Amino acid sequence: MDIVIRNGTLITLGGIFSADVGIVGERIVVLGEELHGKMELDATGCYVLPGGIDPHVHLQMPVGNYVSSDDFASGTVAAALGGTTTVIDFVEPEPGEPLLDALEKRRAEADGRVAVDYGLHMTIPTWHAAHPEALDTLSEVVAAGVPSFKLYLAYEGLRLDDPQLYRVMKAIAGVGGLPIIHCENGPLCETLRAQAVAQGNTTPIYHALTRPPRQEAEAVSRAIDLAALAGSPLYVVHVSCEESMLRIQAARVRGEPVYGETCPQYLLLNGMALDLPDGERLVCSPPLRTEEDNEALWGGLAFEDLDVLATDHCPFTAAEKSGHADFTTIPGGLPSIEARLSLAYHFGQRHWMTLERWVEVCCTNPARIFGLRRKGQIAPGFDADLVLFDPARWVTIQAGRTLHEQVDWSPYEGMTVQGWPRDVLSRGRVIVCDGEFVGEQGWGRFVLREQG
Amino acid sequence: MDIVIRNGTLITLGGIFSADVGIVGERIVVLGEELHGKMELDATGCYVLPGGIDPHVHLQMPVGNYVSSDDFASGTVAAALGGTTTVIDFVEPEPGEPLLDALEKRRAEADGRVAVDYGLHMTIPTWHAAHPEALDTLSEVVAAGVPSFKLYLAYEGLRLDDPQLYRVMKAIAGVGGLPIIHCENGPLCETLRAQAVAQGNTTPIYHALTRPPRQEAEAVSRAIDLAALAGSPLYVVHVSCEESMLRIQAARVRGEPVYGETCPQYLLLNGMALDLPDGERLVCSPPLRTEEDNEALWGGLAFEDLDVLATDHCPFTAAEKSGHADFTTIPGGLPSIEARLSLAYHFGQRHWMTLERWVEVCCTNPARIFGLRRKGQIAPGFDADLVLFDPARWVTIQAGRTLHEQVDWSPYEGMTVQGWPRDVLSRGRVIVCDGEFVGEQGWGRFVLREQG
Amino acid sequence: MDIVIRNGTLITLGGIFSADVGIVGERIVVLGEELHGKMELDATGCYVLPGGIDPHVHLQMPVGNYVSSDDFASGTVAAALGGTTTVIDFVEPEPGEPLLDALEKRRAEADGRVAVDYGLHMTIPTWHAAHPEALDTLSEVVAAGVPSFKLYLAYEGLRLDDPQLYRVMKAIAGVGGLPIIHCENGPLCETLRAQAVAQGNTTPIYHALTRPPRQEAEAVSRAIDLAALAGSPLYVVHVSCEESMLRIQAARVRGEPVYGETCPQYLLLNGMALDLPDGERLVCSPPLRTEEDNEALWGGLAFEDLDVLATDHCPFTAAEKSGHADFTTIPGGLPSIEARLSLAYHFGQRHWMTLERWVEVCCTNPARIFGLRRKGQIAPGFDADLVLFDPARWVTIQAGRTLHEQVDWSPYEGMTVQGWPRDVLSRGRVIVCDGEFVGEQGWGRFVLREQG
Amino acid sequence: MDIVIRNGTLITLGGIFSADVGIVGERIVVLGEELHGKMELDATGCYVLPGGIDPHVHLQMPVGNYVSSDDFASGTVAAALGGTTTVIDFVEPEPGEPLLDALEKRRAEADGRVAVDYGLHMTIPTWHAAHPEALDTLSEVVAAGVPSFKLYLAYEGLRLDDPQLYRVMKAIAGVGGLPIIHCENGPLCETLRAQAVAQGNTTPIYHALTRPPRQEAEAVSRAIDLAALAGSPLYVVHVSCEESMLRIQAARVRGEPVYGETCPQYLLLNGMALDLPDGERLVCSPPLRTEEDNEALWGGLAFEDLDVLATDHCPFTAAEKSGHADFTTIPGGLPSIEARLSLAYHFGQRHWMTLERWVEVCCTNPARIFGLRRKGQIAPGFDADLVLFDPARWVTIQAGRTLHEQVDWSPYEGMTVQGWPRDVLSRGRVIVCDGEFVGEQGWGRFVLREQG
Repeated sequence: MDIVIRNGTLITLGGIFSADVGIVGERIVVLGEELHGKMELDATGCYVLPGGIDPHVHLQMPVGNYVSSDDFASGTVAAALGGTTTVIDFVEPEPGEPLLDALEKRRAEADGRVAVDYGLHMTIPTWHAAHPEALDTLSEVVAAGVPSFKLYLAYEGLRLDDPQLYRVMKAIAGVGGLPIIHCENGPLCETLRAQAVAQGNTTPIYHALTRPPRQEAEAVSRAIDLAALAGSPLYVVHVSCEESMLRIQAARVRGEPVYGETCPQYLLLNGMALDLPDGERLVCSPPLRTEEDNEALWGGLAFEDLDVLATDHCPFTAAEKSGHADFTTIPGGLPSIEARLSLAYHFGQRHWMTLERWVEVCCTNPARIFGLRRKGQIAPGFDADLVLFDPARWVTIQAGRTLHEQVDWSPYEGMTVQGWPRDVLSRGRVIVCDGEFVGEQGWGRFVLREQG
Repeated sequence: MDIVIRNGTLITLGGIFSADVGIVGERIVVLGEELHGKMELDATGCYVLPGGIDPHVHLQMPVGNYVSSDDFASGTVAAALGGTTTVIDFVEPEPGEPLLDALEKRRAEADGRVAVDYGLHMTIPTWHAAHPEALDTLSEVVAAGVPSFKLYLAYEGLRLDDPQLYRVMKAIAGVGGLPIIHCENGPLCETLRAQAVAQGNTTPIYHALTRPPRQEAEAVSRAIDLAALAGSPLYVVHVSCEESMLRIQAARVRGEPVYGETCPQYLLLNGMALDLPDGERLVCSPPLRTEEDNEALWGGLAFEDLDVLATDHCPFTAAEKSGHADFTTIPGGLPSIEARLSLAYHFGQRHWMTLERWVEVCCTNPARIFGLRRKGQIAPGFDADLVLFDPARWVTIQAGRTLHEQVDWSPYEGMTVQGWPRDVLSRGRVIVCDGEFVGEQGWGRFVLREQG
Repeated sequence: MDIVIRNGTLITLGGIFSADVGIVGERIVVLGEELHGKMELDATGCYVLPGGIDPHVHLQMPVGNYVSSDDFASGTVAAALGGTTTVIDFVEPEPGEPLLDALEKRRAEADGRVAVDYGLHMTIPTWHAAHPEALDTLSEVVAAGVPSFKLYLAYEGLRLDDPQLYRVMKAIAGVGGLPIIHCENGPLCETLRAQAVAQGNTTPIYHALTRPPRQEAEAVSRAIDLAALAGSPLYVVHVSCEESMLRIQAARVRGEPVYGETCPQYLLLNGMALDLPDGERLVCSPPLRTEEDNEALWGGLAFEDLDVLATDHCPFTAAEKSGHADFTTIPGGLPSIEARLSLAYHFGQRHWMTLERWVEVCCTNPARIFGLRRKGQIAPGFDADLVLFDPARWVTIQAGRTLHEQVDWSPYEGMTVQGWPRDVLSRGRVIVCDGEFVGEQGWGRFVLREQG
Repeated sequence: MDIVIRNGTLITLGGIFSADVGIVGERIVVLGEELHGKMELDATGCYVLPGGIDPHVHLQMPVGNYVSSDDFASGTVAAALGGTTTVIDFVEPEPGEPLLDALEKRRAEADGRVAVDYGLHMTIPTWHAAHPEALDTLSEVVAAGVPSFKLYLAYEGLRLDDPQLYRVMKAIAGVGGLPIIHCENGPLCETLRAQAVAQGNTTPIYHALTRPPRQEAEAVSRAIDLAALAGSPLYVVHVSCEESMLRIQAARVRGEPVYGETCPQYLLLNGMALDLPDGERLVCSPPLRTEEDNEALWGGLAFEDLDVLATDHCPFTAAEKSGHADFTTIPGGLPSIEARLSLAYHFGQRHWMTLERWVEVCCTNPARIFGLRRKGQIAPGFDADLVLFDPARWVTIQAGRTLHEQVDWSPYEGMTVQGWPRDVLSRGRVIVCDGEFVGEQGWGRFVLREQG
């Protein structure tokens, strides 16, 4: 055996147990007792998890005049240090651009730069939805390893109207794909935003006030209803509030295949902070909500009304975030690619999360839902993506010091968590050793995902 | 006293009791015992009800190349014979036409022709919603006796998009008005319709199949969510299916001021009949549904998840309904202005409806919700709009014979009901005597409605 | 006409309108305009209501070593001054005593003493439930004007076990009667109580802590389930907490005929007060709960999850309430027979209660549910039980001063309400004039109630 | 390695994957690829599952004048042939008998006879609940490997009243134990039964009619409410109807730790069969219900409203079941210990069950809930309890031929299923080989269970 992880406590969906993990090349070949190999990692005192999977990140992503500050290199190094060994980013085709061309272009940006494996979701923007022939290649996109499709109900250029949404979901369902959807009622938010600005209400809190929870819930309900009509499953990204979660819950009670995702910022942060100094940094969409929403979402995550904890990682520097005449020009997005696993571990214990559920929402469910057939589990034949998570390690979150994201602030600045990855393996290679990155850019590979 | 109704059993929301009703001029002045007057009507064996109010009728209404076959004269005579002494029809402004001009024009069509009192709802079409200044006169419209506003989520030229819907509801709420809304997702239905036609599916049943229950429910949910955001009450017209009703019920459980209306066709008819001979006659929107929906709506009506039984009366002749190349050109709408009270009485007894609830949904609730301050109750000071309803009278519904609607067929043809109006008074005048119309065209007046 | 009430605003379930009320003898004979009579009461500025009906009072009721401090005379005078013109008290047969004998005995205590009309519920104690032949006279009890039967799930001597409850409800349903039920799990409460005392927890707050909301909810659920099995309607008295109300709501959503009652103390008082000085006075069962429960019950009352506001009036003097070695010997019960209407009017306005709903829960619903066929409405033929309620009258509640209950304290002491009865009529006789009692003991009569 | 299972498809809660399983002695030591050992079992074409766990069986159990016809030997051989490698049976102490004595006695009946491992639940009968000192040894019972306690709400001698139930659950929770409860309202059922017999309704169908779904639901609700008051988790055995499941679902939505179990008979059989020839054989409690209940329970099992599929295996011979004067003397219980896995596999595919969920409810969840720390998973360190399940094997169920239960009939007689265990291992020993039992009595051991 090339590597053996010894004496660890394995956390799997099926349960918690002690076993050594034996690795040959890139894959796990053995779970066993008293295994030995060329290299042995002593995991005594550590939990051994399948590598974290973050299915919602935006690296070097153009947003208006800005580009998110983590590129494929820096972002994936930060991910690795935080115990995430696979990220799924997005392809966003230009108007008129064939989907497969856009995929190739985006892959060219990532290949050779990523420190961990990555996948891509294919965005279906307005232009493509409006040109049905642009969807003729959906099955080829799926065959190219991209069986999930990002749809938007907000943002000019991305937003789909109802017939487009229906037709696109039906087409996606037809090729066995999964629509994943940003649920906000864009036209309505723009109306509220214009009213606020017209009334001189331009401070960051108005970003949140002009995107109220009820409009998000409306968009969630509509997406669920149209998915039901289209005979399609549905994955709702970044659920931010209780009301939206209740709509998903109701659909699931009716037996409909609807998945929900939330993010650390919606579990831990409070929208009132938008009105505090540096509040503009916290601008993201959907916006931060209330403590009641935080609690409700923790409950949803623990008790299976939500399925996945992703990050929607999309950092902008303090300078980019500040100095805007009004809230409408602040680039939206927050960083959290690195601290996801630890935040979920530390705070999850105070919110009904079991260890198994922690691994399920951070690792196993993203793999299953998004067709990462060789990831998300610790079992022979699976990729040797593994995290040795040290539950005794205290870390105080500090941008630029304990974090390695390429952004000079963190929404979690100053929070202290107990529990942090010690060592991380990606396809059989140690890429983080005792909290230090020892991998290399370009090690990561594009993963051909299958239908979930 | 001018007229005294003697020995009747009064059905009121508060209860059932025996009393004589004394009338002076146009109004009830006394409820009492052993009253006497110049004219006495013996109501022995009859129920005495407040005159029926049908808040949803379309008389001489242009629909594409057709005009609904009942005009203000014939339609209100039929209404009177069926025990309905007030109808509320619609103003539908042309693009660019000031609301008050359109109101005046519509009143000119009705005044002098109507046999019973009438009111009007003001439609806010797409053009007006898109021109905010067109809404500047909303308070004047309210002041002119029209505090309710019809909004559509379907139909080219009428349909409002979400920002329009929000702004219009907010404006309506701002003047104390009530939005009443047709909930179908128009753009989606048009997409489904185009697909069906493209596939050669052109028979009448495809009218129903391209307007499925779930899209209606989606539109209901969306209207409820946007009304909540706009701080507006909401009245959903012609709820046709259980799923839509459940959305209204959920809103009411949350404490939101949402009202629901259904119609006899959604309680008694089955959409499968669209596939039978003459099925094209039954085309209406939303379409007829299933027996399960019928039962669910009866339950909703009886147990207060729905508030009003109206008709959406909009007749077209058998000739106009037939001979179409495909279902898309069939004029939509059904007649039921005349049999409403009797159908609800007869079949309601088999569906948990009490006599008080019957009167509540057919008479009292429409008056309260729509601001008919002097109608809907039997009490001193109220208009002497009264029905002597004979529960022993058997009638077999036959267009042109037992019915007097100006249309040569009825969806209820051949049904036999027990219970029919014997005498009807409108503002103190006997306009139906022993089942014969003895009133006159032009007797009816436009009613200045107040905020509900 | 003997008496005419002029210029009042009538509040009825059907609506609010202006009319004069004409009375001949004991009954309303006319509602009309410009009526005149031998005596005329000017109700300008007042609301005219049907006399209040309090279907849950305990006058001169033996409770252990005590007797409730209001007797049939003092209690009904207080009721009258508060606008309540009918009370329903209880017959509680001794073991072995025939039901009809007990009824006669209880009537003998009240007749000649009551200032307003009264009815009686028949209690079915444990002994009678255990002796099926004791139920043979149920139909005679109904025929004697007592169609409602009080059942208990708590209290030694009164409590029914499940088979008894089932059989008794089935028997009651068989004679068209209505079971009304005290829902607390008696055996469980006694267990909790014994534990508390054993642990030295003897202060009044332990009265509440040993009767937790969940046990009440359990008893409500059980009663509902057994009523469904027995084919019986059900009326749950003194619902004290949200959890119990939710069980009733769930049953109603399923279409089951379950009614709910609450009382002012559960809407306005907080159980934490049991831990304050004089907290022992507030001992009652079920106990006072939390502010959250208060709010939930107001919502239930306003939005029709509960039907009736009664009082469970059962006063004991401050001396009787105080000086107990532990909470278990404090006689349970609170006074509120006099202030019910005013508390509901004043605080109801802050809790979504409309005027019609106020009258419905205090006057009309009790009449309908309990078969008081000639009460609860203002209509010809009905008893001239009327209240002229002055919405401008400010009253600060003070036992022995503004209140006339025979008890030297009030749980509402010091609260100021706006709105109080000015004049009250009982069967055509003015018994309260400008806030003074001008009636007489013995005026009230036993009312033969019919099946509701 | 002693044994290697090669080329199988492992079904685990975490997912489905191909791996070899290496066994040394009694335990799994390795999951890996290309493993070799002294003995190799080729699992090509087979699913490899953790051994089935049936946590609800009654072997050689005295029921009135009868003893269930499978003894510990015959019953566990049948279990093994059906792929079940652990059963949990019951200790039922006599009045006055110390719990530990009863445990020892029951163990003496099983030890040396069982073909597979077994555990025991400790019943707390009425006598012990009524004698609090009898519960003083609860923690010793837990320490003796019995952390789960069977409680009854029905049956003379076993039934607990509410205070007993509360105290017992509180005591169990206090030692970290789990109450598992038979929810039927015994006293009520006895009343209904007596009425039926008195009316001459003595045929088997009256067994079901006198134990209606609503009384079961009442008992479930009550147990849930009392568990919440006692601060205890709860496991509801043999949920038979939708209404009961809805009560469990409601508790789980409230966040309460309530588990639910159902059995094949409640998923597949219809209570109307009690009225057919040989209907008396189908007498069991709770009784068989309707097809609607079947469907609802399948849904609950698939979508996580229920957690476990057990059998309540309690067979009586056709002779014992027949010839009774009335239904009350028929010994209650059905056999299904052998066909459980196959029935669930075959019919589950038609009812939304995934392979993972099948394994979860039949193997993994029983292990986790009942503290079988080394069972229910395929992982190093776990007992080598394994099933090679051949999905291609067709079996027609025939008592005495394809089944090996010691009973001459089966409620599933004649049903054909596709999918049956080929080989079964118990702690590293092959006990079923190609469908033949090759193990031995006495191989099984008592399992010391830990707190779940």
